Amino acid sequence: VTVHRRHAEALDRADALADFRERFVLADQQRIYADGNSLGRLPRETVARLDELVREWGERLVGGWEDWIELPARVGDGIGEVIGARPGETLVCDSTTVNLYKLASAALDLRNEGGAVLVDEDDFPTNRYVLEGIAASRGLELRRMTTAPIEGPSAQDVTREAAAGDVALVALSHVSYRTGALADLPAITEAAQDTGALMLWDLSHSAGVVPVRLSDSGADLGVGCTYKYLNAGPGAPAFLFVRTDLQERMRSPVWGWFGQRDQFRMRARYQPASGIERFLAGTPPILGLTAVQAGLELVLEAGLERLREKAAALTELFLVLHDERLEPLGFRLSTPSDSERRGAHVSVGHEDGWQICRALIERAEVIPDFRPPDMVRFGFAPLYSRFVDVWDAVDRLARLIETGEYRQVSAKSARVT
Amino acid sequence: VTVHRRHAEALDRADALADFRERFVLADQQRIYADGNSLGRLPRETVARLDELVREWGERLVGGWEDWIELPARVGDGIGEVIGARPGETLVCDSTTVNLYKLASAALDLRNEGGAVLVDEDDFPTNRYVLEGIAASRGLELRRMTTAPIEGPSAQDVTREAAAGDVALVALSHVSYRTGALADLPAITEAAQDTGALMLWDLSHSAGVVPVRLSDSGADLGVGCTYKYLNAGPGAPAFLFVRTDLQERMRSPVWGWFGQRDQFRMRARYQPASGIERFLAGTPPILGLTAVQAGLELVLEAGLERLREKAAALTELFLVLHDERLEPLGFRLSTPSDSERRGAHVSVGHEDGWQICRALIERAEVIPDFRPPDMVRFGFAPLYSRFVDVWDAVDRLARLIETGEYRQVSAKSARVT
Repeated sequence: VTVHRRHAEALDRADALADFRERFVLADQQRIYADGNSLGRLPRETVARLDELVREWGERLVGGWEDWIELPARVGDGIGEVIGARPGETLVCDSTTVNLYKLASAALDLRNEGGAVLVDEDDFPTNRYVLEGIAASRGLELRRMTTAPIEGPSAQDVTREAAAGDVALVALSHVSYRTGALADLPAITEAAQDTGALMLWDLSHSAGVVPVRLSDSGADLGVGCTYKYLNAGPGAPAFLFVRTDLQERMRSPVWGWFGQRDQFRMRARYQPASGIERFLAGTPPILGLTAVQAGLELVLEAGLERLREKAAALTELFLVLHDERLEPLGFRLSTPSDSERRGAHVSVGHEDGWQICRALIERAEVIPDFRPPDMVRFGFAPLYSRFVDVWDAVDRLARLIETGEYRQVSAKSARVT
Repeated sequence: VTVHRRHAEALDRADALADFRERFVLADQQRIYADGNSLGRLPRETVARLDELVREWGERLVGGWEDWIELPARVGDGIGEVIGARPGETLVCDSTTVNLYKLASAALDLRNEGGAVLVDEDDFPTNRYVLEGIAASRGLELRRMTTAPIEGPSAQDVTREAAAGDVALVALSHVSYRTGALADLPAITEAAQDTGALMLWDLSHSAGVVPVRLSDSGADLGVGCTYKYLNAGPGAPAFLFVRTDLQERMRSPVWGWFGQRDQFRMRARYQPASGIERFLAGTPPILGLTAVQAGLELVLEAGLERLREKAAALTELFLVLHDERLEPLGFRLSTPSDSERRGAHVSVGHEDGWQICRALIERAEVIPDFRPPDMVRFGFAPLYSRFVDVWDAVDRLARLIETGEYRQVSAKSARVT
């Protein structure tokens, strides 16, 4: 072993964000949580804020709506700071799936000339499914592009695919949920728009760990999740982004009363609100919005540049340790080796990946995630992950293989979580 | 005065549900809350359950999904008991608006022959808006029917409207948000189906106070809200109902990963889950679902027959008091006088309705709601409302008018809440 644990300990001592770990509920100090990109940890402040909100419901009752009604746009502007949007370009509402549906439908209504919907064959399933459904209902082609297995989609991919026939909408993930590859957002946006398509980004795996300059890049549309690096809790509401100058030309397919221009006049005909609020649908989930607000504030306090820097250092340590200890045991790195080209998680493939993932959870108190067909995925959320967590995770993983202990875990399981 | 306060006190002493009031947080005993049909009160148990769920998030982290993933269908089956659905016919997910969008779209896909969408011109705005949007996007006619101003839609209305041209979908509210009129659900369902249309009910103002026999009535589709009489909190997730034998023939327009047959295989093509879960879209909101579960259990414990009986008695007392004290002051009853024909709220019209509503809130500690153009609406949620609340509310209202005090409140306000 050339990279000793004391090296990781030294990195922790020098970590400017180290104190943020204590801002989270750490119920089990033995456990290494490497799945914060699936469900982020619980911030201590969130416990207090939810308690306060519940008390407010009990006390103010319907009068609470005077303030709550502003939350989708207000918390949205907070998310806007994280993703580089201008005020009035972001909302928090509904799920990522529903937001993707609303924006993709609205984008295709705007184009209104046919044209394919271009997706990455390896993108997160709900993205492909939603766009498959929309394309099917409109008789449009869903063009599934094959991209570099690890590096993911590039501007060249988009240009090549568009040459095969008109593309109306390109929808891609900024960071791949599988490999952690970070797409070149400005270049791909430009390539998509050069072909005449609108560009929609899913920022689920980048929001809160990669500084995104969405408005500056000229991106048209965006969606993303708040329960990963924004730590807003299971099923917390998602966000959506629409570039300012597109807003008045676009309409949500869901004409709900919260997107109505003058909601409480209850007038006979629907008129969309001006601005981003036209993309609201039904009554916003106030418990969830409160948790998003609390999680978001921690991210903004830490600062995105510092989070990015630490995330890169955490994954870099993993890669060094992988080369030294995992590769000789049959692992293959499934993540870009250049830290500029990846987000905050890393994946390693192994022919017994599923069994190894179960063994880590059941026998080694390490919580990664599994992604078919064979990838074990480690997310190191920089707000609360330590360098020793990375070191210990790799160490425990290597020992499970070296001792053969992982084979004692059943290869079968009811569900991949 | 012939109906004295002691009469109301006697009714409270005889009230079999009286003890349920203490199961709620009652932050201000002076205030009379008559808007539980807009936002229900906070059950004490909900405070504990949310606290427990938040702790579970902190401790189990992503592992919590093993249990959480069942919540939309499990809590849905609980709602099913409230609305008379069979197990496997109800889900809790998304907002009422989004659920209405999903089911109405799926219904029109199923019909696939054109045909109008029939709505009530006086229905709750989001219902009309959503259906207006869907009809517009498909080039279908949105037929807005005019119904009896107080009694609302009847089977005859539906038959008459269908005679004017093919109707594909009839979408109506079971209880009118304005007048409290209770529609004849079985008769209207039959009339709609006789014309070849599918029947979709919005149960927002009946779920939890009117026993609904949705499956027995043969209704096709339903949606509804949980933050009114189910007391699940601001923006809590809504429910949807699809009759068993329709499920396999219908598809949600939103092809999300939670509606996918084998969610974690992440296979390349979308295949809807069998059964009601195909109507899920994105990740379900676990905080909200937990609050729905807690609120629901109180309703089931109290029993729908008893809730219905008490709600009828509460509104009956209001009507008697209205005739005696309010009508002479210029009020007009805007609610059916037959208790069999109304839900749990009553509305009274007055030319200064808006100002009177503000005065009740600002000067009399009575919280009603205002519905344009001139209605003051009083909801008496039977789980926590007392008969003396009804008496005191009418008494305070009458005094505001008799003394002219209500005129001291500004007639202008920024927003109707």
